[in-house]
Amino acid sequence: MSARAVVLLSGGLDSSTCLAWARERGFECWTLAVDYGQRHRVELEAARRVAQALGSAGHRELKLDLRAIGGSALTADLEVPRDRDERAMGADIPVTYVPARNTVLLGLALALAETLDAHDLVAGMNALDYSGYPDCRPEFVRAFEALANLATRAGAGGAVFTVHTPLMSLDKAGVIRLGRSLGLDYSLTHTCYDPAPDPASPGACAACGRCDACLLRLKGFREAGLPDPVRYVTDLPGLEPTSRT
Amino acid sequence: MSARAVVLLSGGLDSSTCLAWARERGFECWTLAVDYGQRHRVELEAARRVAQALGSAGHRELKLDLRAIGGSALTADLEVPRDRDERAMGADIPVTYVPARNTVLLGLALALAETLDAHDLVAGMNALDYSGYPDCRPEFVRAFEALANLATRAGAGGAVFTVHTPLMSLDKAGVIRLGRSLGLDYSLTHTCYDPAPDPASPGACAACGRCDACLLRLKGFREAGLPDPVRYVTDLPGLEPTSRT
Repeated sequence: MSARAVVLLSGGLDSSTCLAWARERGFECWTLAVDYGQRHRVELEAARRVAQALGSAGHRELKLDLRAIGGSALTADLEVPRDRDERAMGADIPVTYVPARNTVLLGLALALAETLDAHDLVAGMNALDYSGYPDCRPEFVRAFEALANLATRAGAGGAVFTVHTPLMSLDKAGVIRLGRSLGLDYSLTHTCYDPAPDPASPGACAACGRCDACLLRLKGFREAGLPDPVRYVTDLPGLEPTSRT
Repeated sequence: MSARAVVLLSGGLDSSTCLAWARERGFECWTLAVDYGQRHRVELEAARRVAQALGSAGHRELKLDLRAIGGSALTADLEVPRDRDERAMGADIPVTYVPARNTVLLGLALALAETLDAHDLVAGMNALDYSGYPDCRPEFVRAFEALANLATRAGAGGAVFTVHTPLMSLDKAGVIRLGRSLGLDYSLTHTCYDPAPDPASPGACAACGRCDACLLRLKGFREAGLPDPVRYVTDLPGLEPTSRT
């Protein structure tokens, strides 16, 4: 029997690549998407698509309304920054920071892992492209492993938890090359912080191409020498990027 | 200005005592109740009552449906054990164990703390009466502090987080004596895993007196030489404990 792993899956480029990596490593992958009051439910739909396409053994969605806590442009009504260069992105912790997000997400993954008797967690943290989030650093991941070993029934019985972060040392182009080498279809994924409805296709969305997440993604595909298969606002006929509000 | 603290408040005896302790220590207390799909919403009502009575600077309720994960009699449809002696309670990790609960709850408290610029968390973990929960041990608490210092914007800037667990070394009688010495009115609190509706008072509940939580609470009041002011099923006229389903 394959060892089980819990893979945090947002439906974005990074977490989808992690799932492809974990499948290739031979884990029986259980996927967990956390609905923490994101602005765009299109993320949750992308996670479902990716889970199905990559053969998740079981996909769970867990609601957690972080809006009750506040503190981020992704869950509150602050403005998502646009058109920033990388220096501006890296200069400080961005307003899109969700407080203690990875602590909470890994905690929920750990809860699911306990019920499945899994001791492996997989998450897409990345120290290079991390845009100033403190909970994406390797030392945070090691501290979480130490916590998991003390926090759980399995750990109390001697099991050792591992948090796999296969993207930790890769730049975005490296992530994309890894995913493509594993056969991942990136048209299934969703990255944009601020997508626009696609007037030609009800229910579908196009990426803005201007938020930090889009800019990093586009740069990654450019540096990997590959086209990005998702639709951008600029691909939509008759809709100017600036005509949206 | 007083330092701010985030106090995890379930409305039970332990967390209510923690709030009284933190107020007495001079913290400006922000209280957080997590609705993780408990069987009994009466717990959330108790938390609101206690927060108001003890002057919480702000009480937040956060929904988190742990039933999507399962693994516990408190959130699933397993039977709550009754009439167990302490040896049976302590023999193994009980079915009322919620997987990774304190990791998740402290993670959410940490998220709220970040938005309030608070570096103090207060929680009711207890190593003596802990009934076999691995995430109630002092070494778990120390590991969470280490994680918090790495996980947060404030920690990255040099702040040091402290998780206060004023009940860690107290037995239940000691907790009750502490709370009474701080003037806490325990009739506001709710402890029972399996309460019954009070037919004489619509909306109100009586404690079963037979689940592990009730038995530990009753023993605590007995050993402290004090009466427990909450209503028990056996106090209800014309209702036998066994007539409930």
